[in-house]
Order: sequence, then C-alpha cells, then structure tokens
Amino acid sequence: MSSSPASLDAIFRPRSVAVVGASRQPDSLGRVVLHNLLAGDFSGIIFPVNPHASSIHGLKCYPSVVDIPDAVDLAILVVPAAQVLDVARDCAEKSVGGLVVITAGFAEIGGDGRERERVLVELVRERGMRLVGPNCMGVLNTDPSFQLNGTFAPVAPGRGPIALISQSGAMGVAILNQAESLQVGLSKFISIGNKPDVNANDVLEYLRDDPLTRVILLYLESFGDPRAFVRIAREITPHKPIVIVKAGRTHAGAAAASSHTGALVGSDLAVDALLSQCGVLRVDSVEALFDVGSSLASQPLPRGRRVVVVTNAGGPAILATDALAGSGLEVPTLTEEVRELLRPDAPPEASLKNPVDLTGSATPDHFRRTLRTLLARDDIDAALTIFVEPVIREPQAVAEAIAEVAVEFDKPLLACFVAREVVLEALRDREDALRPVFLFPESAVRGLVALTRYREIREAPQGTVRQFDVDRPRAAAVLERAMAAGYPYLSEPEGYEVLQAYGIGTASYRLVRSADEAVEFASQIEGAVVMKLIARAVAHKSDIGGVMVDVQGEDAIRDGFHILVRNAKTHGGPDLELGGILVQEMVRGGRELILGMKQDPVFGPILAFGLGGIYVEVLQDVALRLSPVTDVEASEMVRSIRAYPLLEGFRGEAPASIEAIVEALMRISQLVQDFECIREIDINPFLAVEQAKSCVAVDARIVLE
Amino acid sequence: MSSSPASLDAIFRPRSVAVVGASRQPDSLGRVVLHNLLAGDFSGIIFPVNPHASSIHGLKCYPSVVDIPDAVDLAILVVPAAQVLDVARDCAEKSVGGLVVITAGFAEIGGDGRERERVLVELVRERGMRLVGPNCMGVLNTDPSFQLNGTFAPVAPGRGPIALISQSGAMGVAILNQAESLQVGLSKFISIGNKPDVNANDVLEYLRDDPLTRVILLYLESFGDPRAFVRIAREITPHKPIVIVKAGRTHAGAAAASSHTGALVGSDLAVDALLSQCGVLRVDSVEALFDVGSSLASQPLPRGRRVVVVTNAGGPAILATDALAGSGLEVPTLTEEVRELLRPDAPPEASLKNPVDLTGSATPDHFRRTLRTLLARDDIDAALTIFVEPVIREPQAVAEAIAEVAVEFDKPLLACFVAREVVLEALRDREDALRPVFLFPESAVRGLVALTRYREIREAPQGTVRQFDVDRPRAAAVLERAMAAGYPYLSEPEGYEVLQAYGIGTASYRLVRSADEAVEFASQIEGAVVMKLIARAVAHKSDIGGVMVDVQGEDAIRDGFHILVRNAKTHGGPDLELGGILVQEMVRGGRELILGMKQDPVFGPILAFGLGGIYVEVLQDVALRLSPVTDVEASEMVRSIRAYPLLEGFRGEAPASIEAIVEALMRISQLVQDFECIREIDINPFLAVEQAKSCVAVDARIVLE
Repeated sequence: MSSSPASLDAIFRPRSVAVVGASRQPDSLGRVVLHNLLAGDFSGIIFPVNPHASSIHGLKCYPSVVDIPDAVDLAILVVPAAQVLDVARDCAEKSVGGLVVITAGFAEIGGDGRERERVLVELVRERGMRLVGPNCMGVLNTDPSFQLNGTFAPVAPGRGPIALISQSGAMGVAILNQAESLQVGLSKFISIGNKPDVNANDVLEYLRDDPLTRVILLYLESFGDPRAFVRIAREITPHKPIVIVKAGRTHAGAAAASSHTGALVGSDLAVDALLSQCGVLRVDSVEALFDVGSSLASQPLPRGRRVVVVTNAGGPAILATDALAGSGLEVPTLTEEVRELLRPDAPPEASLKNPVDLTGSATPDHFRRTLRTLLARDDIDAALTIFVEPVIREPQAVAEAIAEVAVEFDKPLLACFVAREVVLEALRDREDALRPVFLFPESAVRGLVALTRYREIREAPQGTVRQFDVDRPRAAAVLERAMAAGYPYLSEPEGYEVLQAYGIGTASYRLVRSADEAVEFASQIEGAVVMKLIARAVAHKSDIGGVMVDVQGEDAIRDGFHILVRNAKTHGGPDLELGGILVQEMVRGGRELILGMKQDPVFGPILAFGLGGIYVEVLQDVALRLSPVTDVEASEMVRSIRAYPLLEGFRGEAPASIEAIVEALMRISQLVQDFECIREIDINPFLAVEQAKSCVAVDARIVLE
Repeated sequence: MSSSPASLDAIFRPRSVAVVGASRQPDSLGRVVLHNLLAGDFSGIIFPVNPHASSIHGLKCYPSVVDIPDAVDLAILVVPAAQVLDVARDCAEKSVGGLVVITAGFAEIGGDGRERERVLVELVRERGMRLVGPNCMGVLNTDPSFQLNGTFAPVAPGRGPIALISQSGAMGVAILNQAESLQVGLSKFISIGNKPDVNANDVLEYLRDDPLTRVILLYLESFGDPRAFVRIAREITPHKPIVIVKAGRTHAGAAAASSHTGALVGSDLAVDALLSQCGVLRVDSVEALFDVGSSLASQPLPRGRRVVVVTNAGGPAILATDALAGSGLEVPTLTEEVRELLRPDAPPEASLKNPVDLTGSATPDHFRRTLRTLLARDDIDAALTIFVEPVIREPQAVAEAIAEVAVEFDKPLLACFVAREVVLEALRDREDALRPVFLFPESAVRGLVALTRYREIREAPQGTVRQFDVDRPRAAAVLERAMAAGYPYLSEPEGYEVLQAYGIGTASYRLVRSADEAVEFASQIEGAVVMKLIARAVAHKSDIGGVMVDVQGEDAIRDGFHILVRNAKTHGGPDLELGGILVQEMVRGGRELILGMKQDPVFGPILAFGLGGIYVEVLQDVALRLSPVTDVEASEMVRSIRAYPLLEGFRGEAPASIEAIVEALMRISQLVQDFECIREIDINPFLAVEQAKSCVAVDARIVLE
C-alpha cells in the first residue's frame, strides 16, 4: 500500500515549499504557516501561492502552483476544503513530491468530505505523490540541513533527539506546548491527521533510519494496520525506544462477543498485548509521555533495578520511594559499610540509609561527593536526586554538582527540583548534563521506570515462533467439510479431531450410535465416563439435559444413552438430526484451564489463557497475546496471570505442567495461523496435570467464519 | 494530651509576634521570616528580637523576649538549636501563648536533639503554651483580620478557602509553590514539623470550626494517634472534605507477622481502611492534591455520575473519556433527541454524541449554548470542557462563555485549556467563575472524580456500631484463665468457647479424653467427624500427624483416638501435656472464608475478611477495616472483595448468607473491643452456607498479648 519510506523525503527534506493559501490576514492559518516557515529559518526556498496577492511578507507570490518557475518538492495546503482537489491537481501537474493538507473537512465530517478524501487519495496515488493529512497541523524538521517548520503551531520547539508523531492535531498542540515548557528538543514532528496515505507506520519506518532521532513518541487513537505496526516496531525497539499514548482505552471495542473467550478480548487488552509484544512502552497521558521520552533521550540505561535516592528533604524522598517500590524498582537499604563511606562527605545530621537524606543543610559538595561514592558502586544501578529549594542554598550550584557527576558515570541520574517556576526554567536552560529537570518526584520515577523497562525490553530474548510437525491435511479436511456444509461451528468430536491433528491432547472419546457401542467403548477405559448429546442444532446441550457425568457400569451407560436420545427428541423435536452420543473418559483431578482464541476485526487472532471457573469470569485474571506467539511470549502469557502460583503447586498440591500449557498455546497459535476460517476457539476446560502427556482438552468449541 | 482547640488562636490569630533570631543578614532565615511578616502585611505588631541589633528593617529590636514592653501572643524562633530552650523559657516568663520553632536539630537527629525536644515539650506543657515544630517552616493565615505570614516560604499564596497542613517542611515548600503556580488561594497553612505538641489532629479540630476554611489538604508521613484522627475526621468530613497525601505507602510496616491474618495486614492497607472509614480522600501526589483540592474548593457537588465532555478537539476528549470511564464515572452517549437540541447551536461538522466535539471552528457562543443546553438537563450531572488553543480562536472569550454558564447551574463545570503557559496564567488570573483552570484533561478528571466521591461520602449512611447481647463473663473467664496460666494462645476448644460466648457459630465438637467418649459423641452427630490432637505445646498439629479428617464408624474413631495419642507421644515426647482429643462434626459444603483480626501497634485492632484457599494468599483479595466497624462498614467489607460474586452464588451454586458473615464480623469487632488482650484472631475457615444459622467456624486460633 505505501511506497518506499524514502519517498517521505519530499515531506521532511524538501528543498522548496509552496504555501498554497498563504495570506497576510492576521490570525489566518495561511499567514501563520508562512510566518512559521520564515521564522523557523527554512533551509530551502519558499513560494507563497495566492491568486489575490503579488507579494506576502516580502516574498513574491504566485497565482497558482503551476506558475512557480522552479521545481517544488513540497506543497502545504491551507486553502478551503472545496479548493483542495484543484490545488492537488496543479501540484501533480507541477510534479510536486509531497502534499501536506492542513485543511479540515474531509473524512472526519463524513458524507461529501469522505468522498473528497477518496478522490484526493486516488489522485496522489496515481501521480506518485505522498500526502500528509488532510486535517492535520503540519510537519516540522529541526535537522540543520533541512530545517522546516511547516506547522501552524503557536510554539516552536528546539532541536533534540526526540521525534513525535501525533494523530490528533489538537494533541499535537498540547505536545509541542509541553516540549517547549520542559525545554525538550525535537528532531521531527508530524501531525498525520486523517492519515489516508502517510500513516504512523510509514513515519515509523522513515524514523527507523533517521540518525537524528533516538526516541520516538507517538500519540495514536487508532491502528490502521496493527500487524504492520508490530512488524515495524519490532525492528525499531531494539535500537530506539518507542513510547505511545494510545487513546480510546476504555471506550473502544468491548463489542458484545458471542462466546466465552470472546467476551474477554476487550480491544484495549489487545492493544496492551500488541504493544508489549513489540516492545513499545505505553503511558496514559501527554505528561507521562514527556517524563518518559525526555528521560530516554538523555539518560543511559540502568543495568539493574537498584536505585538510590539522594535528597535534601525527607517528604518528597518518601513519595519517590513509594513510587519506585510501587513500580517494581528497588530502593535497597545501604549497609553500615556503605554508610561509613558516605559519612565524611555528608552533614552530621544526615540519614544515610536510602533514601540518603542530606537534610536542609546539604551543600552542593555534599551532593557531589555522595552521588560520586554511590554511583561508583556496582550494587547501585541508578540515582534519583531531589532538591527542595530552601531559602539559603543555591539550586544552580547543586545543579552544577549533579551535572558534573552525571557525566562521570554511565548510569541514570535523574534530578528533581521542587522549586518555583522561574528556578525550574533557569535550570532547564542550563547547557550541561542536567537533563531532564523534573518538578515532581513522581515524574522522575516514571522516567526511571521507563529506562529500566526499556533496558529489559532490549535484553529480553527475542523468542521464536515454533513450527510443530502437525497433520494439517487432517484438520483441513474437517474444517472444509464443515465450511462446505455451511455449519457455523464444529461439533465437539470434530473440534477434538482438529486439536489432535495439531498435537493438542484430548480426553479419550468415541462418538457412538448405539448403547452397545457406548458400553463397548466404556469397557476399554478405566473409571466413569461422561456422555454428551451431539446434534448440530443444539448449541447448548446442557440446557436440554444433553450431558451426563460420572456414568459408570453397563446398565447406567445403557440408560444414559437412551435418556440422552429421548431428551434430544423431546426438546429438539422429532426432526432433530442427531449426530450421535459422545462417550468420553471422565478425567479427574488436574487444574482447569481455559485456552482460547478470538479473531479481532482489527488485530487478527488473539490468544487467551486463564484458569477455569471463577478466575477468568469473576476475577478477570486472563492473559492475551496476538497470534503468532513466540515461545517466549507463550511462556510469559502463562506466567503473567495472578493465579500462576496455583499452577506451580500451591500448598502441596501437584503442580501443572507449564511446558505442556505453553506448548498447547503455541500449537493453537499455529492452528489459527494456518486456518483463517477459524473465528473462535474455546477449550474450556483444558485439564493440566503434572505429566505433560496427560494434559488434555475435555471440551472444545470451534466457531467458523 | 492536647489542650482545647481554642488555644491554637495564639498560633493562628496572634495580635503580636516576636521574631526571635530576626536578622538583617541576606538569605538568613531570620531575615526571611521577618521580611515575610512585613511583606505579608501582618495585622498586629511585630517585635524583632536580636541582642546584636538595635533595629532591623526599621523596626525597633529587643535584646530578649522579656525586654518587649507589650504583651506577646506568638514567638517565632529562628535561633540556633542550642538557644531554643533558653528562648522558650523567656517566652514562658513573658506569658507568650504560642511558639513556632522553625529551628531544626531536635528529635529528627536523635540523641541530644531528642533530649532537647523532650525538655522543650515538658516546658511548654508546664507553662500552658502551645508549640508548633520544631523543625518546621512556619504558619500562615490569610484571614483579613488576622493576616500572618510566619513562614520562610519563598512564595506567598493568595487568599482562598483551602487550608493546608504539612508534616514535612520540604513538602510545604512544594505545596506552596504549586498553590502559587495554579493560583489557588489558601485560608491557612501550617507546617507541623516534628509535632511533639501541636499535631495534625489538633489543627484539624481547629479547622473544623474555621468558617474561612472549606477544604482541608493534608500531607502526612505518620499518624500520631490514628483513633483520634478517625474521630475528628468523622466529625469534619460530612461538612468539609479532607484530602490527604499519606507518604510511606510501600515502605512502612509490612512487619513480619506471626500468623496468617497478620501477614495480610500491611500498614498501608490499614491506612487505606482507616481513611475510607472516616471519609477522607486519598491521593498519591502533590499534583493530585491540588487537582482535587482546587476542584472541591470551587465547584458544587454533582448529583450523579453522568458527565458530558464538551471539546473543540477530539484527542484530549478521548483521553478524558478514558480517564473518566476508568475511574467509574459515566460518559453516556447522547440520544438522537438531545443531539437534535444541540445541532442548531453547534458548527455543522460537530460530532454530538459525547464527547461533544464542536471541532476547531467552535466559537465561544457554540460553547456557551451547548453547555447551557446540556447542563439544564436532568440526565447530565457534570460537564468537563476542553479547549485546545488553536491559531484563530481567542481562549479568553471561550473562558468567559464557560464562566458565564458555570454560575447559571448548580453542577460542576470543570475547564481544561490545552494552551501555552502564558495563556494559562492569564486564564487563572480571571476574576470570574472559571475555577480551577486545568492544563491536562487527566487533572480535570481527577477533580471530577473527587467531587463525585465526596458527594457519595456525604450521602453514605453513617451506620452504627451494633452492640450484640453476648455472654461477656464466659469469654472473660476463658481468657483470664489462659492469661493467668501464661499461655500465648487459646487452645482450639477455648477459642470456640470465646466465639460461642459472642454468638459466633462453631461446628459441634467435644473435647474427649477416651476412645469411648469419642465414640459416644460421634454417635450423636450425623456423618463423619474430624479428630484433632489438643496440646498446648503443639502449635502446628498437622505437622505431627495430629489431625484426622473424615473419620466414620466406631472402629475408625477408636483407632483414630489411639493413633492421635500415639503420634502426640512420639513427636511431643513422653512429657507432652495432652489437653485431649477434639472430636468435631465434619461440615461439608459451603464457602470457606477467613475472618480475622490483628492488633496493629499504631492502628489498634484491624479486622480482615477474605475467601479461604488461594483467594487471600495468592490473589491477595482481602478487605480490611479498623475495629470497631459499623454495620455499613462490615457490609462494605464483605462486598468489596473481588471474589464477592462467589458469595452471591456463581453459576447456580448456592449463595452464602451475607447477613451471617456481616454479623460475624461485627461480633468479632465487639469481642476485640471488649478484650484488648486478644492480639490476633484467625478463623480459617469459617464455612458460610445459605442458611445464616448454619454458618460456622471450623477452626479458630486466638493469640493473646
């Protein structure tokens, strides 16, 4: 669908820009865009286009794009929506490489707008142009060689290693505001608007190879192509962190799902699964986006989770410690030996346990020496400093001391200054290694947590998608037969057959048509059996007395057979097509699990895992991953549920074979990758015991397209 | 311990203040405090005290407090720690009413400092003075009649309805900074420092009756007297909201506890229980404290949970909706009928479902009319507006429109302006009903959630602590006998006797001393029995083969008796003092619950409730409340666990009698109120069935002081 990423050069690195709809009218978008290009010291040539003016801002103005004598790489359109198509045609004629359509009034308003967008996209595709927007706030590049502020933003951030992609123009404004207020520099910014052509995935691919971008921040409301996102993000995250605010957490999805597993797969849980599978860090707000982004942009990664907090005040250090420990980092108590090392360089009343409270009388030198001693130690991975602005001490001198130590060690050193706005601004203006400067300890903690998490993402084993030796033709035959007959789901024995073809164990069973046959099968297995009515027209067999459990002995089995057949006829009518009676080994003991899959219209097949009974339904203790899962992901899935200790064996109970469960999940993943016609799988329960070979499905529902 | 609250008048409403240690040295605390008093336009007379100066800042200076010719209500001490006691003695001689000791170097440094503080407190108690600090940042009152800035804070907040109490001086600075930056006005501020005399409870009591204070914000690191806090907070919260940041969430407590229930009672969970029982709102950061405090100070309470979001941009509205729904508020989709009402007053491209997105072309009038239509409706309880600063529209005019509608309705209307810092400042300077002005939608949501929560707190039934008709002497006799004998815990039958005396059902049992007696008792009950070895020296009877379950029939019971006695002798040695064999009805079915209590050294008796097996231990699904519990609290306790649906009857299983469980919790509460010598109770399991009368304890461990 998208062209090669290089073609975004026309957007980000144009040598000439036409501003179509440039204007001198105060507060018009056309004026602001032109002003920003000029004020932003665009590194190429600017051509204002406006049929009603001969010059604007001292630049010669052209009546139309086609009248421009030189080549035009990029056109920024701020004309009314009704004129956009005509201008785009002019651009095509002029062989313009890229269009940034700021104008709104397209697909987002539906009706005419949608049609206008369709025609526009068709045009740019046909003529090999790239289109950003419509309904966007523009593009910005701070690369000194290709400097470009093609936005109508009221603020212009400085140069830095962070690239920003925003789906929403409004959030773009919020994001640029925040970048300016925190004095965080950007490499590139793009507001992708309705994104019918250039979308987040295209920009990600472009930024992957951009040497000026070291961190990518994303604000998204929807994934156009989640699988492409996963593929591209997986390529990027081992080298550059990606941080995302994905809006629509609670509202999206949650579509009424027809089955058990289905109901569990809320779209937002799928988003979480997707993001964690491709190593993307998710945060909840623009504020957190910057806490995390600015930390990743300026700090080295920690080697472990052990953090020391060095402060001149107790209160905020306690809040920081709460937040660190609550996020899974460690604030280890310093040993008496370490305290002895610190004592000569700290005020006499200092408390040196960690948090290291140097008290209000701490001098810059106290901070410098204490941090130096601590960061030199192998058992400390990162430091967080807190400085509360008192009356007497000079924050600037403390900032200098912290910055000095920061360059000496390859460890994170995050600084929080509880100070007035003017003091913070001055600190953020410093040209040294003091980056970022946080006001609240919680923000610094967010930064440190993300650094730790990202280090773990980089170091995590990649895992492989295992391909098991399966009997694909056998499964295909069952599925094709059912599809051909137009059945909405497989019968239980058909489901078992598909599972067996993919190496997933099932309890012994036989589909019988007579009481004799039932007795004969039952005699082959030890213990009692379960008997189930199999009839295509009966979706919920237990509702019509179609299930009997714990049946033992020839008489009981004969009776059972006849009762089930009678119940079928009574409730299903005389014309009920009876598939037979399923006689199944009654498996006892083991842990009841639910293994499932549901096709999501956006995300494709999503695997679900949890414990049976109340765990999934009442306690919502379920793990989801997008298929295909790697061995590492399948294993994480099983280990991530809250009830996992039960599987390891709780209070002397036998453990369940984790290996068998992980393998079953991978086999289901392979099955649903092989057969897109499977809409849903619900193995409930899957009985897991200690012996891997004895873990079996004892019920299975497979729903088809 | 504390005097009557009126005596804090000397602190908050002095007619004269001596600044002992006043100085003209730049950046000294003595200079800053004097400067703040002068700049803050103190409504009384200021007496600088410094033996080395004759005048400071144009004020006559006195060598000592006793040299001041007039009466002195309050003395603020900024002298070195070593001089504080002498100055305090002078103050006593001069009959000063209150001391604010800013000087540090007291209990917080241990050793000498602790002793110095002890002597200081003794002195102020003896001489009827009140003491704020030591180690604090002072006191502030904005009451026009008693204007006082007795702090060394670098910022001075304006007048408003919010009172602030901070245990930490440093957090006091952070809090005052934040108040200034958000332009939030304060009624009073006090930094209580080491709080050996005036503590948070005293100040709360004082603020309870302060007509200028409508909201109380607290930053605390420890509760001195949690029971007094609960009592006072319960009096206040029906009239004024209290919001707290309680630091030490993860570090405090978590002391290794000796038993089951004990391990569950982490101190922070106890804090949560305590705060919810007295209607105090808890937040996690200073930022959230102000989001919530400023909303409570300026907005009416909503009547329900239905919120409409009115915005000029999609992105932040989605984030707001996520945050609202994630916090349990509702963002109901507007009906087609309501949308028809809105349409004439909205831009044509607006999306009117809720969020109501008026789009970038929204005018102030669009906001005004849309909000008016929506807030007039009975099915909307509150509105949240989001305005993203674009190029063309004027935020001030939109602010005016919002403020105009705000005064027309008695419903919350919170405003978020995604705008540059300068624009926000101008908006916060407005003198109209636009309060507060938030930058981030998440902050506005926090405010709205707190307004809703506080309305629910005010409307919640108070509940009563029920007094059941119990056999207190019978329980007392058992406990006294065990205490007198020096036993660390009651034997199982003794435990049952205590429970029975308090009306808590137990399974039928008899303590027998012969096999004949065991057989005789077993013959009286239906079904099997459980047999347990009872011996004081054996804490964990199952470890030595001291428990047999499901014993049925005379032979089995006789065998069981002899096996248990033999096991006792084998493992416990020949001298083991055998209390007997407990023969107990084997109760089947029902839901296994854990009811427990543990004495917390700070919070007193804490009740715990959860489901047995993995629910409490693995899933940590437990509810805690401080005893005594009211009927409402006991009921909330049972209903608040995640696994509650199981008690209501899950998938056709029989429900458990909620009434019986709630009553059992209240009876345990009464028991532990009556007997402080009980350190721990662990009823595990308590079997709950549908019939209230058949719910019984089948094991009970009662640990004594």
